[in-house]
Amino acid sequence: MSITVAVSGASGYAGGEALRLLSGHPEVEIGAVTAHSQAGERLGVLQPHLHTLADRVLEPTTADVLAGHDVVFLALPHGASGPIAAELAERSPDTVVIDAGADHRLESAATWAQYYGTEHAGTWPYGLPELPGQRGRLAGARRIAVPGCYPTATLLALTPGFGAGLLQPRDVVIVAASGTSGAGKALKPHLLGSEVMGSMSPYGVGGGHRHTPEIEQGLAWAAGEDVQVSFTPTLAPMPRGILATATARLTDDADPAAVRAAWETAYADEPFVRLLPEGQWPTTAAVIASNHVQVQLAVDERAGRVVVVSAIDNLCKGTAGGAVQSMNIALGLPEQAGLESQGVAP
Amino acid sequence: MSITVAVSGASGYAGGEALRLLSGHPEVEIGAVTAHSQAGERLGVLQPHLHTLADRVLEPTTADVLAGHDVVFLALPHGASGPIAAELAERSPDTVVIDAGADHRLESAATWAQYYGTEHAGTWPYGLPELPGQRGRLAGARRIAVPGCYPTATLLALTPGFGAGLLQPRDVVIVAASGTSGAGKALKPHLLGSEVMGSMSPYGVGGGHRHTPEIEQGLAWAAGEDVQVSFTPTLAPMPRGILATATARLTDDADPAAVRAAWETAYADEPFVRLLPEGQWPTTAAVIASNHVQVQLAVDERAGRVVVVSAIDNLCKGTAGGAVQSMNIALGLPEQAGLESQGVAP
Amino acid sequence: MSITVAVSGASGYAGGEALRLLSGHPEVEIGAVTAHSQAGERLGVLQPHLHTLADRVLEPTTADVLAGHDVVFLALPHGASGPIAAELAERSPDTVVIDAGADHRLESAATWAQYYGTEHAGTWPYGLPELPGQRGRLAGARRIAVPGCYPTATLLALTPGFGAGLLQPRDVVIVAASGTSGAGKALKPHLLGSEVMGSMSPYGVGGGHRHTPEIEQGLAWAAGEDVQVSFTPTLAPMPRGILATATARLTDDADPAAVRAAWETAYADEPFVRLLPEGQWPTTAAVIASNHVQVQLAVDERAGRVVVVSAIDNLCKGTAGGAVQSMNIALGLPEQAGLESQGVAP
Amino acid sequence: MSITVAVSGASGYAGGEALRLLSGHPEVEIGAVTAHSQAGERLGVLQPHLHTLADRVLEPTTADVLAGHDVVFLALPHGASGPIAAELAERSPDTVVIDAGADHRLESAATWAQYYGTEHAGTWPYGLPELPGQRGRLAGARRIAVPGCYPTATLLALTPGFGAGLLQPRDVVIVAASGTSGAGKALKPHLLGSEVMGSMSPYGVGGGHRHTPEIEQGLAWAAGEDVQVSFTPTLAPMPRGILATATARLTDDADPAAVRAAWETAYADEPFVRLLPEGQWPTTAAVIASNHVQVQLAVDERAGRVVVVSAIDNLCKGTAGGAVQSMNIALGLPEQAGLESQGVAP
Repeated sequence: MSITVAVSGASGYAGGEALRLLSGHPEVEIGAVTAHSQAGERLGVLQPHLHTLADRVLEPTTADVLAGHDVVFLALPHGASGPIAAELAERSPDTVVIDAGADHRLESAATWAQYYGTEHAGTWPYGLPELPGQRGRLAGARRIAVPGCYPTATLLALTPGFGAGLLQPRDVVIVAASGTSGAGKALKPHLLGSEVMGSMSPYGVGGGHRHTPEIEQGLAWAAGEDVQVSFTPTLAPMPRGILATATARLTDDADPAAVRAAWETAYADEPFVRLLPEGQWPTTAAVIASNHVQVQLAVDERAGRVVVVSAIDNLCKGTAGGAVQSMNIALGLPEQAGLESQGVAP
Repeated sequence: MSITVAVSGASGYAGGEALRLLSGHPEVEIGAVTAHSQAGERLGVLQPHLHTLADRVLEPTTADVLAGHDVVFLALPHGASGPIAAELAERSPDTVVIDAGADHRLESAATWAQYYGTEHAGTWPYGLPELPGQRGRLAGARRIAVPGCYPTATLLALTPGFGAGLLQPRDVVIVAASGTSGAGKALKPHLLGSEVMGSMSPYGVGGGHRHTPEIEQGLAWAAGEDVQVSFTPTLAPMPRGILATATARLTDDADPAAVRAAWETAYADEPFVRLLPEGQWPTTAAVIASNHVQVQLAVDERAGRVVVVSAIDNLCKGTAGGAVQSMNIALGLPEQAGLESQGVAP
Repeated sequence: MSITVAVSGASGYAGGEALRLLSGHPEVEIGAVTAHSQAGERLGVLQPHLHTLADRVLEPTTADVLAGHDVVFLALPHGASGPIAAELAERSPDTVVIDAGADHRLESAATWAQYYGTEHAGTWPYGLPELPGQRGRLAGARRIAVPGCYPTATLLALTPGFGAGLLQPRDVVIVAASGTSGAGKALKPHLLGSEVMGSMSPYGVGGGHRHTPEIEQGLAWAAGEDVQVSFTPTLAPMPRGILATATARLTDDADPAAVRAAWETAYADEPFVRLLPEGQWPTTAAVIASNHVQVQLAVDERAGRVVVVSAIDNLCKGTAGGAVQSMNIALGLPEQAGLESQGVAP
Repeated sequence: MSITVAVSGASGYAGGEALRLLSGHPEVEIGAVTAHSQAGERLGVLQPHLHTLADRVLEPTTADVLAGHDVVFLALPHGASGPIAAELAERSPDTVVIDAGADHRLESAATWAQYYGTEHAGTWPYGLPELPGQRGRLAGARRIAVPGCYPTATLLALTPGFGAGLLQPRDVVIVAASGTSGAGKALKPHLLGSEVMGSMSPYGVGGGHRHTPEIEQGLAWAAGEDVQVSFTPTLAPMPRGILATATARLTDDADPAAVRAAWETAYADEPFVRLLPEGQWPTTAAVIASNHVQVQLAVDERAGRVVVVSAIDNLCKGTAGGAVQSMNIALGLPEQAGLESQGVAP
């Protein structure tokens, strides 16, 4: 008996990726697919790569349409998930709701207000199963907040070190490059192909990016104390992929020889995260279209720092893939169901 | 009970794509993976996107290693398939051999000699199931010649018109753009990233490309007479994908209104080829990493021509995907087994 | 004493390229730079690569602002050049007007109406000096219609053959790939970086592209009779450049050995067009940011056709560079003034 | 009376860029162009974008060929400049030698030996005129060591802060993305277009990159004390450009409000370096093919750090453009001669 899943925001990149993955999920039947301004259009026009769904027609994103499904994916602009989730809670209380947006990620209402400027919608279990203890919190959950793409890449890079007490919490620098799909399908001049091809540029420099508090929240969980990061995202000339370069100062009593062991231990049994053999470094090409994560690290003894690099597909493990993984855990399905494909390269 | 499949040429792009698809095939167990100069290396180093096969070690490409498998994929340079196939025929007569190289595609030994300059290895059933009557020839076949990538895109574009007697055989012009993976992993200066990014260039102009006689052979099958094409391939700044623009003059008695119907009829029941709704044109992005093909056409009444555009993934439907599809037919498996994934976009 | 040049449409790609070239022109002083909705903005924000013009403020595109300059460049949407040119003729009769838009390219008012749907603004001397006899028509001209980018690439590819009577006028097929800047800065979903990177797609298939009649007009000039083309443009994943593949059937009495000589003769003394040595083919990378054109051809004796490939920079020789070249001729300046730079590669 | 300049390594990217710039330099006549394995080949084949030099034939790179020129550019692999410079000193003592390679950049022979493993060839004046006092050292110099591309981007980002005593010398983190031309024309698998398009990857992580000591040397000059950096370079899917994200901790008594003033002062009169208006961030697209540098910074008060981002063209300001600029200073020419072109965008 299939699980019915509705996908809202199905005209966008996150919604499209959710549909791509869910259409290959052995336990899932895709229910309603909804959009806002594109309601009424055929999916074949908006997502021509979803060949077997080409004749599906987008319905409007309303609680009416979404109610009654076993699972609802919300891939909406921030601020939009809160209200519709509240309505669903009332009309369709058994529906599991998975929010790929930002609304339910942060614990602190004050931080939410500072970075997003609206009222906090609440905090849901955080859908990053690789964090210590997190799988237990996701099992049976009826509400899941899917992590942001940069936080996914960054937390997977650094939490083993903080968890093992190897890293100082005040000197963390992260520079990450993201493919353009991370910015969505918004019609902005700087996202035109003519502008992005052959160019790199930073944005949200100096602490302004909204993923900064989410990264600090996750690192603090691992460190057991506040962590402060300098985070600079950059836009890279590729459609998908995040390469995160994260560096932190080692604690005074950290044994450099023991550093690698912390990451090895953390990811020894993880199905999707792999510490590469020494000498091999992540490339975003290797993870495109897959839920896999590549991690590698180097201890810079001269500088007293560890440098960790992680690569993810921002739309897959960084959004829709992570969402499906958490859904699987919440529903008691095999964690890898629907996520078993390799990367696509070259 | 699984079918064991060995993949030779596993260090290259075609071999890598075969492994990507076969690792998701429900009936297949991957056996030996072999290479030439890279034998002894781990797959995780050469094909880092094949996450679950990372620890496989490449064996040498010998009949010894390949013998005993239910199926052997040959993804070798042209000229190399013939000898190893002959050896396999002797040592492992029950093995189904699928040649992704050129050696067994052409019927004419003279044409082979003219274009490839070596002795002809023979002619095997041609692995393009969408050609009229071809599925029947592939069912139960023990030897399959996988079509070239350009012929796949081109024959799917034009055969419905020739089959319906709508096109003149002496005025066919094809210009196709291919991603760089079509040229393989060869270390040639013009394939460096610095050279190809932001650039387009032609090659094999004037009839010299080795896929020309293969295109003409396939069109002649459909037309029932000799067909002569002007074929110009170009190298495009993308890793994957072929966009073929094929145009032919309509016969004098062709009813322009009937043209579209020929393609509609030809592809009405094809699982992988889709004539798009009128007004929507193929993009290579829509077919990347999938076995699907997009086709669209326009009648240019002024010029008395039909222009057909097709998009395929050169490594998937154009090589490894087409190979798996033909393997499925040969073995009596569901034709879509292992090939059900959508495209990956953006 | 400098020539003062005003540039309208300075916020767009064609206007930006005009400013790039004119700022390096030894005889030119840049006067007003104007825009429509972006008037009031600094050029440094909209065209950050024009370093020495960063503090220039865009003025509105009005005859008032443009009047009084020695030369006015119009880089406006089609339909907009006609009215402002008419106003300028009255208020600033001595000003030379160079229209980079389509309004004044076509001789036939009926064809204009059919393809553009508005009233024909008139016909100006056609700014492609390499056409036979064209330099004489441009010398002293006060009005110049800059050719479209596809017509520039195509006419330079084929006119030598038509001029020499070697090509049949009814069997001309052109497939051209253009970088995305050819589509301008318009905020359309299919022009987003996420969509165009890694993808190729056709548009205007079947004779619908507005450059078709302009190509036919130019070829007819050379052939001395009507020429009919099948023209298919495609969008390529690169910011700049056009690669045109043009093929035509040889006349029955054409001596294949004489074909190459026609192109050699036509371009022997051209400063910007070069027939490459035999065996070397054009790449768009070689002409980026330069006014140079690369041409190569092959006779396909089997198919009885010649295949000519040309590469230009659509913004430079295809728009602003061609405009400067024609301006130089019109004003009696050295034809290469301001256009002497090499291509930029890799 | 022209200055004759010979260019060695003319088959490579740095040599090609030197020729591109020098062919537009009003005071320069290009003399011998030399190469190693490609000697005897025409430049038109190897550098097809250098249209006006297409018929030049490459000579072998020997002191014999290079002697007698006013200036010799060395664009050779590291280790090769030392011997040929020594020979030139003897045979052509008046020739100014400009080394675009690494051989003469480092002051410390021990550091050279540690990072390059060969004997130190000596230390020449460092060709980064924007460093405090450096123009004076370059005026009249007969030997110039052109800085590395990453050090150029990084030192221009950070030296104003160290010069003003605002930055702590022990907590400097730099992550930089470079286009593939920075890796040269070497035929390595990871530089193939199929591999780099759509992918980002790090290299030399953990302090191993050879530009690390050069960056630390330059920052120490500005700081007046040792500076230690964590430097991670990444390879980006674009042919040209470096985007450097550099961050350092502010000194305890630094007034955040005074930080911006340090950079404003440093670059107020620099012809090629521009601190962008607040709110506008560098893009590599804006500096391609130009000698210009864009810089922007943000103070992250929460983290107590400044984040500075700079963008250069690695081949132009980062190699050949910086070389021409230093040559101009050394010879008493206008510093901007031959370097006045804008960037090329889009």
